[in-house]
Amino acid sequence: MPRPSLAILKNLATQLRIDSVRSTSAAGSGHPTTCLSAADIMSALFFAEMRFDPHDPHHPEADRFVLSKGHAAPILYAAWAAAGAFGRDEVLNLRKITSDLEGHPTPRLPFVDVATGSLGQGLAAGVGAALNARRINSDYRTYVLLGDGETAEGSVWEAAEVAAFHKLDNLCAFTDVNGFGQSRPTQWNHDLEAFASRYRAFGWHAITIDGHDMAAILSALDEARATKGRPTMVVASTFKGKGVKLFENKDNWHGKALKKGPEEDAAIKELEAQYVETSDPAPVIPKPKEKRSEGALPNFVAKMPPPAYKLGDQVATREAYGTALASLGAVDPRIVALDADVKNSTFSEKFEKAYPDRFYQVFIAEQALIGVSMGLASRGAIPFPSTFACFLERASDFIRMAGISMLNVKLAGSHAGVSIGEDGPSQMALEDLAMARGVPNCSVFYPCDAVSAERLMAVAAATPGPAYLRMSRPKTPVIYTNEEAFTVGGSKTLRESDNDVVTVVAAGVTVFEALKAHDLLKTKGLSIRVIDAYSIQPIDQAAMVSAGKATRGQIITVEDHYAHGGLGDAVSEAVSMHGFKVRRLAVREIPRSGPPEELLDRYGLSARAIVEAVGAF
Amino acid sequence: MPRPSLAILKNLATQLRIDSVRSTSAAGSGHPTTCLSAADIMSALFFAEMRFDPHDPHHPEADRFVLSKGHAAPILYAAWAAAGAFGRDEVLNLRKITSDLEGHPTPRLPFVDVATGSLGQGLAAGVGAALNARRINSDYRTYVLLGDGETAEGSVWEAAEVAAFHKLDNLCAFTDVNGFGQSRPTQWNHDLEAFASRYRAFGWHAITIDGHDMAAILSALDEARATKGRPTMVVASTFKGKGVKLFENKDNWHGKALKKGPEEDAAIKELEAQYVETSDPAPVIPKPKEKRSEGALPNFVAKMPPPAYKLGDQVATREAYGTALASLGAVDPRIVALDADVKNSTFSEKFEKAYPDRFYQVFIAEQALIGVSMGLASRGAIPFPSTFACFLERASDFIRMAGISMLNVKLAGSHAGVSIGEDGPSQMALEDLAMARGVPNCSVFYPCDAVSAERLMAVAAATPGPAYLRMSRPKTPVIYTNEEAFTVGGSKTLRESDNDVVTVVAAGVTVFEALKAHDLLKTKGLSIRVIDAYSIQPIDQAAMVSAGKATRGQIITVEDHYAHGGLGDAVSEAVSMHGFKVRRLAVREIPRSGPPEELLDRYGLSARAIVEAVGAF
Repeated sequence: MPRPSLAILKNLATQLRIDSVRSTSAAGSGHPTTCLSAADIMSALFFAEMRFDPHDPHHPEADRFVLSKGHAAPILYAAWAAAGAFGRDEVLNLRKITSDLEGHPTPRLPFVDVATGSLGQGLAAGVGAALNARRINSDYRTYVLLGDGETAEGSVWEAAEVAAFHKLDNLCAFTDVNGFGQSRPTQWNHDLEAFASRYRAFGWHAITIDGHDMAAILSALDEARATKGRPTMVVASTFKGKGVKLFENKDNWHGKALKKGPEEDAAIKELEAQYVETSDPAPVIPKPKEKRSEGALPNFVAKMPPPAYKLGDQVATREAYGTALASLGAVDPRIVALDADVKNSTFSEKFEKAYPDRFYQVFIAEQALIGVSMGLASRGAIPFPSTFACFLERASDFIRMAGISMLNVKLAGSHAGVSIGEDGPSQMALEDLAMARGVPNCSVFYPCDAVSAERLMAVAAATPGPAYLRMSRPKTPVIYTNEEAFTVGGSKTLRESDNDVVTVVAAGVTVFEALKAHDLLKTKGLSIRVIDAYSIQPIDQAAMVSAGKATRGQIITVEDHYAHGGLGDAVSEAVSMHGFKVRRLAVREIPRSGPPEELLDRYGLSARAIVEAVGAF
Repeated sequence: MPRPSLAILKNLATQLRIDSVRSTSAAGSGHPTTCLSAADIMSALFFAEMRFDPHDPHHPEADRFVLSKGHAAPILYAAWAAAGAFGRDEVLNLRKITSDLEGHPTPRLPFVDVATGSLGQGLAAGVGAALNARRINSDYRTYVLLGDGETAEGSVWEAAEVAAFHKLDNLCAFTDVNGFGQSRPTQWNHDLEAFASRYRAFGWHAITIDGHDMAAILSALDEARATKGRPTMVVASTFKGKGVKLFENKDNWHGKALKKGPEEDAAIKELEAQYVETSDPAPVIPKPKEKRSEGALPNFVAKMPPPAYKLGDQVATREAYGTALASLGAVDPRIVALDADVKNSTFSEKFEKAYPDRFYQVFIAEQALIGVSMGLASRGAIPFPSTFACFLERASDFIRMAGISMLNVKLAGSHAGVSIGEDGPSQMALEDLAMARGVPNCSVFYPCDAVSAERLMAVAAATPGPAYLRMSRPKTPVIYTNEEAFTVGGSKTLRESDNDVVTVVAAGVTVFEALKAHDLLKTKGLSIRVIDAYSIQPIDQAAMVSAGKATRGQIITVEDHYAHGGLGDAVSEAVSMHGFKVRRLAVREIPRSGPPEELLDRYGLSARAIVEAVGAF
């Protein structure tokens, strides 16, 4: 299909500028200047390059566009309006509580794959989308638009490295070099080579152009498509606020809408004067290839082969994770795994061995680990990125955005808590439950044995939205039979009697301390109830309340985690309207290196500590 | 002072190798191979380059060394032992619970400035230390040793960019290119140019050498010292496990100690054979320049000029933050501020205007924001890094490590909660309190008005260890007089009577909703107690308990934050042994764009929602 003429594309760029001004002025806030610098690039991408169906944005064969500079949302909306997805005047609802045209893009809009607005995240998502094309054997291409300022984010360079390593020539990104950040000129101003040389050093093909020269943009797109074996970065020199003299290339205009009335009117008039006369044919957006569907998702819980352990087997949950990951991989080709160079510690290497084509190595780059997973998930894959739980925190802001994006990213963190032992505090995740519980739509699972670990992997795969699985380093005995069922929001009552004096709620390694405490107290004639709260979010509220009622309103929580944001908080909230007493055992200071058992005892999580806490009621 | 001979330096490298093997074998775990690749570089740095006093590692004029590849801790300990800080056999206590020679370095050891072990963080700390030299007008130099694998971390490139922008020619880093990560060869193997070209593109001077050639290392150090206007990266080709045939340059030896007995013995023997005969003089480590002290810290709370507001003034706490920051700057030159290109939103620009030399711009790079702050704090400065609260989460893992490092980093996050309005969820911090409370030694303050914001800044400066200050975007009325005092762990009871039926605990913007609710209920003849819990960690437990007792054991918490990890959890824990009922109002789903008041009401934080919750008891 021939491309539209330069005149048509320029006029569309002008239309996008006008609609960006109109929508932000109507909203009374937003970022018109950052839209105007990108208008020519947006026009070229949407009307002369990408294959997509404005009425079916999720089409699996459609080219993808990720607006990494999410504050330019108004021009994204203007582009989809111009493409016919909705009427142009709809953009006037920008930022209203009744509209999905939010201040920054979220997947509440069907044409937004991942939420952006936390800068520096879009390129990793683009890498994930590009890897997915390879996974489904599609020739769709992925385009990402970055701002120049966000290039300072390290996550951009993590993604750049991963893209080059995986030779993603189906990925093309633009950097909109308008020279201004929010509060001042960027450190690079309009030095295009500063960007190009960095990307070249990172293994990319880089092209520098005038970002307001439509022919140059088209030629760069041609060059990118012809480039094999590596991704392309188009470094485009632009002016912030291009087309409106009042703010074109001026500092102190970031995030400021033009006032309704004369200020807006003058800008619109100035922009309208930039339309050129033409009788060239209107653009026809090329449709994507014929739709192939991967089908409905299977019932992972039913389809996954049952675990194969004997009661009492000593198996670390992290190892069961690896086994289960490989099992899940057999159930559906959408299951993929990502590693940050710890596959021999998380045992994700078991998946790599079975399904090398669906295993993505990102090396020691946890933001890329999650960002790439977000891109994969946005295209239908169900990614399981895993690393040490504490290093997942490196990607905290990506995980936050995965929540806002409502994506099927299934995080797994191994080596949780002081029970890792001698490696010391830098390697101990003690705030990861707080991080995961801080994502309101994230399921949080914390298995104590290999059977529950395997079963909860299937539950995580089957549950829509993000999930976090917390795995432990030490070997623990298998306590569940292979047939035992586990559910979102469930728990297991492991010990109970009619005269229990306290309920002890444990999870992960502390389940075994609670069981030991039960036996110790038994010898003294005291009974306690023991619950394995393997689902931390949602927590099994009904079970907690009924156990509390049955045990004199006395509950102890014990967790290999800091006191805040984890199991203790979850249980306290669950029973908060019942007037129970909740005593929590948790790590309350920066721990140190030492043997796991000594650390569990020193920080008050051992059977001894539980017995003491029972006595203190 | 002349340098020691090459023979002496090589022998010291051999000694460091031997002690790294001995200590890890004694511990039965650790990373000997990653120590051995770095031994020659360590020997050159410690015995032929750095000026320091082994018995006074904190000396303000001493050169700094940051071991970014923290898992090489054993060779760091071996080097300090060789320098005379303690006896060589002390290293055999590595990783014992009774020893400060932890698995990864922490500042429990006086010669460790910042805890490392979360890879990719050391360079940012080095940048902070180097900036501090400039601040105190010292010529001390800062050295950082990185691993090759951690170069994949984006935080390295954030730090690299900041170092070049600030032209830190007093900073010299090494990359120990041994070619292996944990689970496989790195993506670069021994391609030194892959590293050098990246650093050059980022504005560094880069030198490639054989990292086992002592003369080449010394010459690179000379070249670095002679390089002006930019930092130097020495890219050193090495072999992992160098010197011990069993594991030299072999995969699958990461993090594995040699077994006590024949395996260790053979390695020690092999290494001992590498000692060369020499009668050259032993090394003399050059002492740092004469000590200049910055003196004891002033009493910030007493010295800071009081706020100057009138009751009822409408001032955003973020704006008061900027005002207070400038006031604090006048109290002591150790107060410094860092910005990630949002100084006009956080108002830290007020500090920049007053003290441009103590204001550090890192651009949009939040990991560098915190990492550089850590380096500055490790050298005596009291840094206030600030950005949007949600973007601080980008640096979650750095904040975790700042806690482990017990550093005086005073984080401030603005634009907390849904009350920011139309910008939408990507810009709303709703899990930042959970993140900050997840650092057990971090004070967490959340002021509601300009007076408390200013006063709490002084409290934060005066309180040892990390602190987090949560600031809001909307203007709120001043409710405290300029003389009001605020303390760590304090709270203010704003409304109380003898017949209060419920205690409402609020903080920040919800204080005003609680006050409105109080007035609304008053008209219906119902009294409620209203508490401003401005200190979230520690929380004012005594006040919560006594208020709960006074109000029928009924408490409502209301916070502009998700339900987990914030105020509700803090209050619930504080009263958990008293059998109260705690109803929490918080955001429970991913919010959307809209006007602040509409969002507060939609997500159940408004006066209306509080009135409803009171009625539901």
